[in-house]
Amino acid sequence: MDITVVLPQKEIPRRWYNVLADLPTPLDPPLHPITKRPVRPEDLEAIFPTKLIEQEVSNERWIDIPEEVLRTYCLWRPTPLRRAYFLEKALGTPARIYVKDESVSPPGSHKPNTAVPQAYYNKMEGTRKICTETGAGQWGSALAFACSRFGLECEVYMVRVSYNQKPCRRRMMEIWGARCIPSPSDRTETGRKILAEDPDSPGSLGIAISEAIEVAVSSKDSKYALGSVLNHVLLHQTIIGLEARKQLESIGEYPDVIIGCAGGGSNFAGLALPFVKDRIEGKEIKIIAVEPASCPTLTKGKFLYDFGDTSGKTPLLPMYTLGHNFMPPPLHAGGLRYHGMAPIVSKLFKEGIIEARAVNQLESFAAGVAWARAEGTIPAPETNHAIAAVIEEAKLAKEEGRERVIVFTFSGHGLLDMGAYEAYLEGGLSNHALSEEEIQKTLKEVNAITRQE
Amino acid sequence: MDITVVLPQKEIPRRWYNVLADLPTPLDPPLHPITKRPVRPEDLEAIFPTKLIEQEVSNERWIDIPEEVLRTYCLWRPTPLRRAYFLEKALGTPARIYVKDESVSPPGSHKPNTAVPQAYYNKMEGTRKICTETGAGQWGSALAFACSRFGLECEVYMVRVSYNQKPCRRRMMEIWGARCIPSPSDRTETGRKILAEDPDSPGSLGIAISEAIEVAVSSKDSKYALGSVLNHVLLHQTIIGLEARKQLESIGEYPDVIIGCAGGGSNFAGLALPFVKDRIEGKEIKIIAVEPASCPTLTKGKFLYDFGDTSGKTPLLPMYTLGHNFMPPPLHAGGLRYHGMAPIVSKLFKEGIIEARAVNQLESFAAGVAWARAEGTIPAPETNHAIAAVIEEAKLAKEEGRERVIVFTFSGHGLLDMGAYEAYLEGGLSNHALSEEEIQKTLKEVNAITRQE
Repeated sequence: MDITVVLPQKEIPRRWYNVLADLPTPLDPPLHPITKRPVRPEDLEAIFPTKLIEQEVSNERWIDIPEEVLRTYCLWRPTPLRRAYFLEKALGTPARIYVKDESVSPPGSHKPNTAVPQAYYNKMEGTRKICTETGAGQWGSALAFACSRFGLECEVYMVRVSYNQKPCRRRMMEIWGARCIPSPSDRTETGRKILAEDPDSPGSLGIAISEAIEVAVSSKDSKYALGSVLNHVLLHQTIIGLEARKQLESIGEYPDVIIGCAGGGSNFAGLALPFVKDRIEGKEIKIIAVEPASCPTLTKGKFLYDFGDTSGKTPLLPMYTLGHNFMPPPLHAGGLRYHGMAPIVSKLFKEGIIEARAVNQLESFAAGVAWARAEGTIPAPETNHAIAAVIEEAKLAKEEGRERVIVFTFSGHGLLDMGAYEAYLEGGLSNHALSEEEIQKTLKEVNAITRQE
Repeated sequence: MDITVVLPQKEIPRRWYNVLADLPTPLDPPLHPITKRPVRPEDLEAIFPTKLIEQEVSNERWIDIPEEVLRTYCLWRPTPLRRAYFLEKALGTPARIYVKDESVSPPGSHKPNTAVPQAYYNKMEGTRKICTETGAGQWGSALAFACSRFGLECEVYMVRVSYNQKPCRRRMMEIWGARCIPSPSDRTETGRKILAEDPDSPGSLGIAISEAIEVAVSSKDSKYALGSVLNHVLLHQTIIGLEARKQLESIGEYPDVIIGCAGGGSNFAGLALPFVKDRIEGKEIKIIAVEPASCPTLTKGKFLYDFGDTSGKTPLLPMYTLGHNFMPPPLHAGGLRYHGMAPIVSKLFKEGIIEARAVNQLESFAAGVAWARAEGTIPAPETNHAIAAVIEEAKLAKEEGRERVIVFTFSGHGLLDMGAYEAYLEGGLSNHALSEEEIQKTLKEVNAITRQE
C-alpha cells in the first residue's frame, strides 16, 4: 500500500546545497559580452538584486533558505516521492523506480522553486517590478505566481507565436495578477525596431530576453529574472534532491541511477546535485541528463564560451552549446529547446561526473503515454524525455537481472499540453531529427565563436 | 510551517461510510419510469453490476473498500488537508480554514473516488466495456482513467458542443485509452433519430445519457456508469470526509462549518456525510451545500419524484428538482448544472440536517481569483462556489469575533478552465441570474410532474 514516501513539513530542508563548494576545479568565470573580461558582480547590479549575485559566485556549501521562502514552499512542498509500482509491473523489471513529483506546485512544474526566492530577495531589496521572458509559459507563470506572493508587479514578455497559440499559461499569469505582453512589443526600442521591419514577426526567446532586460534596466526599482542556466537558479532547485535524499533514506534506499530531463539544466541539477558529491567521492552512481535528439546540447555540442541569449547581449558563459544562433526544430518540449546548458551541468559532464543521453520526440511521447496508462498522471513533454530514459534503464536492469534503484524528477504535468498528445496519438508528430549536415553546419558556427574569442 | 496535515498511506480508511444506516427515516425508493412502482434490484442488472446494486440499497453502516481499489486510491490518496493561512490573513479572520484537496488525482477532481471502484466491480463481474456520458468532461476523464487501471474498454458520449469547445478533457480520455464520441452520434438509434431531424444538433446531457445506456444494454458484457446522484456514488465519495476527520483529529480540530459545492451532490456529500451522524446526534455543526444561483435546485426547487435524466428514461428519484426539463443558463461551472439533487442530500436538506446556499457566477469567480492570489492554486469553476461561501463564513466569524473551524472540499483544479477565467478577468461574464418569472415557470412545470404521479 505504501506508494508515497511522505516527508513531514517540519523536516523540510532549511538550506540549499551549493555544489560550487565541492567541484574538483572551479568554474571558469562568465565574461563580459563586449570587453570579454570576467564579469564583476557590480556589472550585474542593474539587473539582479545583490543577494542573488552573491549566491551566483558563493563558495559556501550550504545556504540558508529564508523563513518566508520556506513558508511559501510549504504551500506545496515537500513534494511526494512515489514508487512507480505499476510501471515496474508493466515492464516486468526488477528495478525499483521512484518518481519525485514536482508537478504538484500551483504553476505545475519545478520552476517556482527558484521563482519564489528570486521574488523574495527582490522584495527585500526594494524592487517594485520584475520583468522576464517566457517561451511556452512555464517560467512566466511560475514567476507570476511568485510575484503574487510578495506583492510585486510582474511583466512577462512572451514569444508572440506562443502567446497566440498557447493562451492557457498566459491566462494563468493574469489570474496571479501579472501582465503578459506578446513579444516583439511596442514597449521597447528592441521591439519597435523589429516590428518596423516585420509587423508580423512571430518573435523569439532572444527578442523577448532583450525586451525584458531593456525594461528592467530602464527603471531603478525594476529588475530582471532568469528561470534556468545560472548558478543561483540551480542552487534553489537543489531543494528537490535534498528532499528526495531524506525520503529515500527514510525507507533505506539509495539511488543507483538518477535521471532528469535537461533544457537549461535546472530541473536536472535540482535532483542530481545533492548526489554529485557522493559521485565525486567515488560512489558508484549513474547520473543521466536527458535531452531531445533534435537539440542535443551535451551529446553533440561543444564546450566553449557562448552567449546565454540568441541576440548576444548577455555575458559569455562557459558551457556546452550548439551555438547561440542554433534554431531547434519546433519540438513540443518547449523547455528543452535551449541552445546551451548551465555552466555547472556542463562542467560536470566535461569532467565525466554525469552522463548525457538524447531521446527523440516520438520515443518521448510513447514513454509519456505508457506512463499515463500505468501510473495515471499525464507528464509534460519535457518530462517524457526523462521517462523514456527511465524505461530504458529499467529494461536494462531486467536484461541484466539486477535490482537497481532508479530515481527521476517528474518536472511538470502535461495538462496544458494536450494538443501535443493529440498530435502524437493521431500520428501527426515526427522526430524532427537533425541531419548530419545540419549538425555539422551548427558546429561550424560554434567553432567560429571559439576563434572569435 | 505546518500548512499540510498529512495522513500516512497505512492509515487510509479501509471502509466507506454508508449514511443510509443512520438516517432518521429511510429514503423513499426510486420508482420505475413506466410502472411507477418501486424499482427492484433486478431491474437494474442490465446496466449496473450486482455489487453496485447491492451497495445502492444496503443499510450496512460500513462497507469494506476492496484491496485493489485501495491500491489505486494510493496513487493520489490520502489527499492533503491544508490550512489556508494566507487566505485567513488576507481576510483578517479569526476563523481557521482547512481545505481538503481533491484536485490532486490524475484526472484533477474527486470523480475518480467512485470511478475506480465502479470500474473494479465491473471488472470482477466480467464486464468488458463501460459506457457513460459526460458534459464538460470531468466524469468522462475520471472513468477513462479508472478503466485504464483495470484493462476495461471505455466509451464516453460527450455532449457535442463541449466535445468541440473543450477538446482538452477529450484528449485526456484518449491518452488513457478511452473512446470519446460526440453526442448525438450515428452509433445509436437515439442519436441517428436526432441527427436525422437536426444534423447540427449541439447535443445535451439527456441525449448523451440515452446513447450511453442504449449501447450499454445492447451487449451482455457492457455496462453503464453514473458519476453522481446515486447512493453508491455518494458512498464511495465518503473517503474524502473519513480522511478529513482523521486529519483534523490528528491536530485536535473539529469543524464548526463544513462546505462543499453541490451539482449532483456527490462532492458535497463526500466531505459532509461522515459528519452528518454527529449532526443528527445533536452536535452543533453547520453543513452547507453551495449551488449556483442560476441552477438553484435546493434553494428554489421542489422536493418530489422526478426523472434523473432530461429524456425521462431513468427511474424517478425522490429529490429536490427544478424539473427535468429545466435548462440552466450556460454557466462555466458545468458540473453544477444538474436539474436535481442526490436523494440522500435532498433528504438531509428536507430534514433540516444540512443547509443550502446559492452563489452567483461573478461572486464565485471573484472568490476563485482571491483564492489563487492568496493560496496559489487555481480552482475549478465549481469549486469557486464553495470558496465564495467559505469567504462569507470567514467574514461572519470576523464580525462575530469568533474562532471557527471551517472545512471545505477543493473539488477540482481549474487548469482546463482558463477560458472561463479569461472571460471573467476581461469583464465578459455575467451572472445569468434567473428572473422571478423564469423560476415560476420552472416550478409550474415541476408541479405538473407531481400531479402526473
